[in-house]
Amino acid sequence: MAGYRVSIVGATGAVGRCIVAVLEERGFPVRSLNLFASSRTAGTTIPYRGDEVEVRDIALEQVRDCDICFFCATNQVSREMAPVVRKSGAVVIDKSSVFRLDPEVPLVVPEVNPGAVDGHKGIIASPNCSTIQLVVAVKPIYDLSRIRRIWAATYQSVSGTGHEAIDELREQTATVLSNGVPVPRVYPRRIAFNIIPHIDSFAPSGYTGEEMKLISETKKILNDEGIRITATAARVPVFYCHSEAVTVETEEKLSVSVVVEALRRMPGVVVSDEANGYHTPVECAGRDDIYVSRVREDIGVDNGISMWIVGDNLRKGAATNAVQIAELLMARGLI
Amino acid sequence: MAGYRVSIVGATGAVGRCIVAVLEERGFPVRSLNLFASSRTAGTTIPYRGDEVEVRDIALEQVRDCDICFFCATNQVSREMAPVVRKSGAVVIDKSSVFRLDPEVPLVVPEVNPGAVDGHKGIIASPNCSTIQLVVAVKPIYDLSRIRRIWAATYQSVSGTGHEAIDELREQTATVLSNGVPVPRVYPRRIAFNIIPHIDSFAPSGYTGEEMKLISETKKILNDEGIRITATAARVPVFYCHSEAVTVETEEKLSVSVVVEALRRMPGVVVSDEANGYHTPVECAGRDDIYVSRVREDIGVDNGISMWIVGDNLRKGAATNAVQIAELLMARGLI
Repeated sequence: MAGYRVSIVGATGAVGRCIVAVLEERGFPVRSLNLFASSRTAGTTIPYRGDEVEVRDIALEQVRDCDICFFCATNQVSREMAPVVRKSGAVVIDKSSVFRLDPEVPLVVPEVNPGAVDGHKGIIASPNCSTIQLVVAVKPIYDLSRIRRIWAATYQSVSGTGHEAIDELREQTATVLSNGVPVPRVYPRRIAFNIIPHIDSFAPSGYTGEEMKLISETKKILNDEGIRITATAARVPVFYCHSEAVTVETEEKLSVSVVVEALRRMPGVVVSDEANGYHTPVECAGRDDIYVSRVREDIGVDNGISMWIVGDNLRKGAATNAVQIAELLMARGLI
Repeated sequence: MAGYRVSIVGATGAVGRCIVAVLEERGFPVRSLNLFASSRTAGTTIPYRGDEVEVRDIALEQVRDCDICFFCATNQVSREMAPVVRKSGAVVIDKSSVFRLDPEVPLVVPEVNPGAVDGHKGIIASPNCSTIQLVVAVKPIYDLSRIRRIWAATYQSVSGTGHEAIDELREQTATVLSNGVPVPRVYPRRIAFNIIPHIDSFAPSGYTGEEMKLISETKKILNDEGIRITATAARVPVFYCHSEAVTVETEEKLSVSVVVEALRRMPGVVVSDEANGYHTPVECAGRDDIYVSRVREDIGVDNGISMWIVGDNLRKGAATNAVQIAELLMARGLI
């Protein structure tokens, strides 16, 4: 029977459910689909091609009985299980941050650095959501001129944290609207009608883990440690899609029209068509493309291009990119 | 009788009401208070020192019968009436953007450029809300070293647009929570659970009016047209307080501790005390200080300092700054 035996570890999470949906939507050749989660949510069923697939408790023996294993559980689960699953001969596509900066592990966005999968050693990492949408928009510029510097400020939705954060935003918002006092559980501060400039933990430098992921992963994916990158990452009261205000400083002067043309040719990018058009998170939710708008000549730096980048963090920022990595491996005969 | 005859034009708006409250809180020496608004809201009463002051329809004859006139109505009202009120001998403190870049008009943030009021010609402009909190945080750095470049991304609350926008956010949010489809009236797109990178109108350059205000006003207030500044301004679903992610590139290298010390000495600034502490909009609402946190050495540029700046756009960003300008004029014997 044709197709691949696919396991998903962390299937009941926001990303896991989305991977199941994306596999079906894109008609990925799945011979058998095995879904796993922690004992807390095992037993749930998830719809797939007209069936309800039952999610089982994570058990190493069963998980590794596959050709492709998507990991979208915690860092700890990836750290412990991914090497064992890989050793059994399956290819691991890992959404955690554990292996992303490991020099032995390709960190892949298929439209950006497909060649990185060649010679993979059984684990391929998918980048952080905020990194993926940045590099998809920046790559066509990089292909026109080396990039000196990138400044980014992010406006990140709560679905990046998971189901419980989506619930927290909804519940806190209802509480505030009825004049109550919301109590933070998932986030360190109230998220309803608020902005939290704190995602992941703080490093001694004062940068957060989320900011450092954006910075380090972008350099690795573009294969250029010389780019100077800075970022501020903030959580905003939005359910789906991250937005980013970005300035790119290039070595050579690029006109806006040349940049827009390059972005239009980039697979997976939609550039706003109208003059002064722009995209907002609610319009881009549920879509796989990265939406780039407000492309303008930056007036704060020579050779600068500023833009506004919106992408669905669960789709291209997580599930779709992971499935595209599997498609890439298939297309290159690496699986 | 001691004190000043004070008029407020636009008294029923979010800023106008706040000016009345701030005059009372700060014990500004008001001999008589005359409140004006358009015919749409005239007749309303506003509490002041235990009284209810009735708001009258704007009538030039009555407005100009004062020593100090605060304008916080539309640009059109300021454009038409402020010169006439000034000619009658009153000092105009104008919150509109009409006169801000006029070389004859001082643009003043009292902690930052108090000397600019000397030799004023009867109209003093108060800057845009997003500019005020930026320059208050940037001035102590500028005093340590010339600034080459500022990069800012804003997260601006709806109260900057006025009462109707506060209502729109509340109503749209309730609609979304009950699975309805919200209809934008005040903003060009839905604001509930969304981000709109579009404040004021677009210039041919692709920058918005709001972004250009931040850029041009900051240069004028710091009296340095050589600073390179860029900005992206976005509206966020927050009721009160603007937040800003800012990187400042200085000519000389400054350590974080020197910058933090300078910020601590700056009047009107609160710097986060805890390691990795930070401020969010809901904590800063209703306060007059500008809150600076996440001060860190920027890793994207040499001599860079990054920080997170939060301020209440109705208080220091508008009403409080206007009243402080009146206090400054008083202290300098200019009124």
